[in-house]
Amino acid sequence: MTDEQAVGTRGNEKLYAGIDAGGTEFKCILATGPDQVVAQDKIPVTYPETTLAACRDFFRAAQQAHGSFAALGIASFGPVDLRRDSPTYGSITSTPKPHWANINIVGYFSDALALPIRFDTDVNGALLAEWCWGAAQGLENAIYVTVGTGIGAGVMVDGRLLHGTMHPEAGHMLLPRYPGDPFVGSCPYHGACLEGLASGPALAQRWQVDPKSLPDNHPAWELQAHYLASMCVNLALTYSPQRIVIGGGVMERASLLPMIRKAYLAQMNAYLGDQTKDIEHFIVPAGLGGLAGASARLLLLNRRFNTGFSNPSRVQPPTSKNIRSTP
Amino acid sequence: MTDEQAVGTRGNEKLYAGIDAGGTEFKCILATGPDQVVAQDKIPVTYPETTLAACRDFFRAAQQAHGSFAALGIASFGPVDLRRDSPTYGSITSTPKPHWANINIVGYFSDALALPIRFDTDVNGALLAEWCWGAAQGLENAIYVTVGTGIGAGVMVDGRLLHGTMHPEAGHMLLPRYPGDPFVGSCPYHGACLEGLASGPALAQRWQVDPKSLPDNHPAWELQAHYLASMCVNLALTYSPQRIVIGGGVMERASLLPMIRKAYLAQMNAYLGDQTKDIEHFIVPAGLGGLAGASARLLLLNRRFNTGFSNPSRVQPPTSKNIRSTP
Repeated sequence: MTDEQAVGTRGNEKLYAGIDAGGTEFKCILATGPDQVVAQDKIPVTYPETTLAACRDFFRAAQQAHGSFAALGIASFGPVDLRRDSPTYGSITSTPKPHWANINIVGYFSDALALPIRFDTDVNGALLAEWCWGAAQGLENAIYVTVGTGIGAGVMVDGRLLHGTMHPEAGHMLLPRYPGDPFVGSCPYHGACLEGLASGPALAQRWQVDPKSLPDNHPAWELQAHYLASMCVNLALTYSPQRIVIGGGVMERASLLPMIRKAYLAQMNAYLGDQTKDIEHFIVPAGLGGLAGASARLLLLNRRFNTGFSNPSRVQPPTSKNIRSTP
Repeated sequence: MTDEQAVGTRGNEKLYAGIDAGGTEFKCILATGPDQVVAQDKIPVTYPETTLAACRDFFRAAQQAHGSFAALGIASFGPVDLRRDSPTYGSITSTPKPHWANINIVGYFSDALALPIRFDTDVNGALLAEWCWGAAQGLENAIYVTVGTGIGAGVMVDGRLLHGTMHPEAGHMLLPRYPGDPFVGSCPYHGACLEGLASGPALAQRWQVDPKSLPDNHPAWELQAHYLASMCVNLALTYSPQRIVIGGGVMERASLLPMIRKAYLAQMNAYLGDQTKDIEHFIVPAGLGGLAGASARLLLLNRRFNTGFSNPSRVQPPTSKNIRSTP
C-alpha cells in the first residue's frame, strides 16, 4: 500500500469510504468529509481479482486502524449495471477492457466488507463533483466527458442525473470520418466509434507513439479536435446542455481545448445560436483537475444528498459550510 | 377550410383546442376529449402569416360555432424556444425550413385568441401520445423519432420528458458516411448530418425522384436503413432507452424497419447485450399511425397531467376511463 496518509478521525464524525474506480487506477479513500481524508491509496488496474483484493485489503486495514465506516460509495468506469432489480446489479458489463467484463464490483465489496454500497458511473460521480465544486456549479443541464483510457459522459438534464435503462454510453457514439482519415479505430466492438478514434489508446495506436510526445503542431491534434468537436455537437444536439465539461488524461494537452471550440463552431454552423454565442463558457475544461480524486471526494458526501447516489432523483447541493470552493 | 367535422359539444364538458404543428401541415382540433372531436382542419404549411392566420380563423369560427375553450395546446416542429423566461419563448428558432425561422407561434395565438397556451415539440407530443395509447405504453425510458420532412426525437428518460436548455435536436446529429456515399446532404446548416442524409427531402434530392416511387429493392433503402440504424445506435448510447419508436412519412415504407433492425444489430455489435436481445421490441414502428393526429389528440388531455405540457416533471398517465386503448 502506497500513499497512505493517516491523520486520524476527527471527533465523533462518521467515517465514509469511497472508490473512484477508473480505467487505470482505483483510488480508495477513507474520510470524515471532503477536507478530512483519513487514509487513501491508489490501486493500479490489472486483473480484477488483484485490484479488488488490494482495495479490500486497504479498507480492512483502514477499518482496523480507524474504526468501522458507515457506507462505501463506488463510482466506476463502465458500462455498469445500475438497475437495482437486475441479477447483475453492480457489475461492469460489456467493457472492451480486458478481464473486466461481467465483474460484479458491488457484489465483491458487499461480501468482503458487509457494508451498504452506493454505486454509479465514474463520469456521473465526476459530474456531481464538478457540479458541487468545479466547472458545472449552479447549472441544471451539464455534461462531463472524460477523454482518457476510454471516453464516457455523465449527464445532468433538468437538474437530474440521467440514467435511463442503464446509463449513457456516449463514448461509443458513431461519428463522421475526418476526410481521408484511414485509421481503422481501436474499439474492439465498433472499430472507429468515438472511443475507437479519439481515446488515449486510439491516439497511441494511430500514431504509434505516446501521445504526450506529440508536439502541439502535430496533425494528431487537428484530428483529435475534429472528433471531439463532433462529439460535442452530438452531445449538444441530444442533451441540450448549458455546458460541456471535458476532463481526462488526453485533455492535459492545453492547446487542445481551444481547437475543439473552433472546430465545434465550424461543425455546428450556428445551428443552435444561443449555445454557441459564448463558446468559452459552453465547452470548458474540468475544474477539479480531471476525474481522479474528484468523484472519490464526492462519494464521501453521498449521505448529504437527498437521495442515494444511484437514484435519478433531483440532487441537492451540499451547504457551503461543508465543502471547499476549490479542490 | 376542409375536413371540418362538427358533432357538437357533449353536455357541459369543457372544450380544448390543439394544434399539431408539423412541417407539412398544421392540424387544428377542437374537442372535449380524445374521442370527442368537435371540429378539425388541416392547414398546409406555406408562409407563416398564411398558415397561422388560417389556424386563427379556424379557432375563431370554432369558438363562434361551439363556444369558448379553456386552453390551446401546441406541439410544434422545431427547434423551438421552450424557456418560459426567454424573450423568444414560444418561437420556432433556427429551423432550416424557409420563412419559419424566428416565428413566435405562442405569441401569435396568445394575441389572436387570448388563451393560455401549452407548448412543446411535436415529437415530445407524439411520444406522450405513444406512451398513453401507442407503442411506448408502460415504459419509463422511450424515444419517439419522426423521419419525414425533417428528423426529430422526443425523449422520455427515467419517466420524464427530456428538455434540457432547449430540447433535443437529435435530427441534426453527425453520423459516419455509408462507404462510398457521395451525396453532399440536404441540410442547409450541416450538409450531411442525419437530417441532411435521411429525411424525406434528402431521399428525394439524392435520387431525384419521389421516394414513394422507389421499389423496395432499390439501393436507396439500404442506405436509408444504414443511416437510421446509426441514428438508433447513437440514441441508444446516449439515452439508454427501453424502446425506440419510429414514425413519420418515410417509415410508411414497410420494408424499411426490418432493414434498420438488421443494420442496427450489425453496427452495435452486441455492445449493449440486453438492449439488443429482443430487437423486435426495441426498435418498433409508431403505434398511432404517424405523428398527425396523435399529438393533437394528446394535447386535449393536457389538463389531466399533473403538470404543464412544457414542464419536465414526471407525467401521470390518464385514467383508462378517459382514453381509448387503441387509436
